[in-house]
Amino acid sequence: MPDEFTFLTALRAIATHPAAAGLADDTAQLGVTTGTLILTSDTMVESVHYRPHDPPESVGWRLAAVNLSDLAAKGATPLACLLNYSLSGDGAWDRAFLHGLNDALTRYAMPLIGGDTVAMPAEAPRSLTLTAIGTAPAQVPLRTGAQPGDTLWVTGTIGGAAFGADGQPRDLARYLHPAPRVAEGQALAPFATAMMDVSDGLLIDAQRLATASGIALTIDLDAIPLALPGPVLDAACAGDDYELLFTLPDGIEPPVPATRIGAARPGSGLALTAGGTPVPRPSRLGYRHG
Amino acid sequence: MPDEFTFLTALRAIATHPAAAGLADDTAQLGVTTGTLILTSDTMVESVHYRPHDPPESVGWRLAAVNLSDLAAKGATPLACLLNYSLSGDGAWDRAFLHGLNDALTRYAMPLIGGDTVAMPAEAPRSLTLTAIGTAPAQVPLRTGAQPGDTLWVTGTIGGAAFGADGQPRDLARYLHPAPRVAEGQALAPFATAMMDVSDGLLIDAQRLATASGIALTIDLDAIPLALPGPVLDAACAGDDYELLFTLPDGIEPPVPATRIGAARPGSGLALTAGGTPVPRPSRLGYRHG
Repeated sequence: MPDEFTFLTALRAIATHPAAAGLADDTAQLGVTTGTLILTSDTMVESVHYRPHDPPESVGWRLAAVNLSDLAAKGATPLACLLNYSLSGDGAWDRAFLHGLNDALTRYAMPLIGGDTVAMPAEAPRSLTLTAIGTAPAQVPLRTGAQPGDTLWVTGTIGGAAFGADGQPRDLARYLHPAPRVAEGQALAPFATAMMDVSDGLLIDAQRLATASGIALTIDLDAIPLALPGPVLDAACAGDDYELLFTLPDGIEPPVPATRIGAARPGSGLALTAGGTPVPRPSRLGYRHG
Repeated sequence: MPDEFTFLTALRAIATHPAAAGLADDTAQLGVTTGTLILTSDTMVESVHYRPHDPPESVGWRLAAVNLSDLAAKGATPLACLLNYSLSGDGAWDRAFLHGLNDALTRYAMPLIGGDTVAMPAEAPRSLTLTAIGTAPAQVPLRTGAQPGDTLWVTGTIGGAAFGADGQPRDLARYLHPAPRVAEGQALAPFATAMMDVSDGLLIDAQRLATASGIALTIDLDAIPLALPGPVLDAACAGDDYELLFTLPDGIEPPVPATRIGAARPGSGLALTAGGTPVPRPSRLGYRHG
């Protein structure tokens, strides 16, 4: 049975930032300086965005990571967050979730300052929301800024969190504890013409970037940095990478490790090549939740 | 069946503020000036915080109103909000919800700038979260500031949204479309030593204010301004009033219409009087969701 009092006590032990004021009021008070805030909010639903048998510490970590990854893609510096939590089922699960969440919030210096805790009807799936606030860099790279002639890059490797034929993540540690590219995003923001994180799959996210920018993208499948050996299309269509996908003006090198995987040109849509020849696009470019 | 594309189209039609950037990115960009932001977030769950047969327009209005009421209690000026919405069941319900939400956001000038939309597993109850951001007044009245000798006040009337013996709200319009006291909160903030909104019931919320401030409160039941004729304890223990409860230094009159209902003294807890004599406290002081 969920125990709201125990949960709220554990929550208060995490929310030690002055802006939280011990969660004793209905609101948080956050000091800000003149500039731009980056705001993002992600909801994870049991059996939709995570598996019921995933370790609860991992679900907490991932809820923080998906929001941090959105901040990273804008080059933002994490400032604070709010948690909306639904108590349902096992109280030990809730406390383990908080441990994992707190690990990520501590690691990325994003203090929890408020939110809401509600009890769900019996048997209802948990629905977990984190709202993250960051301070924007001087120049915020949007999805919309890619220009014909830009080069296309991705940080890290792709496909590690993909599910293998055995129904398990190919790299379990990476699936359970993705590392949002916060520092890399900050370093890239002054140079990137467009940037977004890869959450639903490299190809589907690249197509979204192309559509938002009103350009065409060509991706060289041979260039995609794979997390593990295996079919490149499986990796490029799998979700949960949390790498950064970005465009740079031709001739500009990224200030952090990244791999050049393609280029932007006039037109629309996404084209693939391998060995220098066009390759048909798979019918399904990535993962769409629900 | 929920239709995510139709819903997102309707959402974009509402999110016209520049900070939303057409909801085309994963984040919103909000310009701020040096000062303090007030942040609050409330989640409403189907069958817990609203009745499945409540009109969806009203659920949308109320989700905005509960958050605006929290901002009002700190004297904040609404700045922007994010919606986390779970699609489940009837798509017409979702669109009617958005109409009601938009009515309230327009009325109280709190533009929608971002959030997240997720699909729920079949048959799961909807879980709806709004996160509201406001700019703080020069002096933010917390729950913690009441002093012995302060007078205790409440805006408006109490008990209108209470459920009668017939299982229906006594004042249906007030239940369906509560009016958060945003302007009153702004006017009161410079004077109130403590302030909070009355959401779960006058008595339980007064007790929370007493506990947070480390003082005792005495409430004169005869003084409570009733929305409708009826037993005062029923009204004072019912939720969903969304009035403001606040303390003032003795001798200070509120700058907006309000009723003096009691006083603070050294000690702890909540005491009731009627006709000048102590009255036993009811065993249940208010409504606690879930």
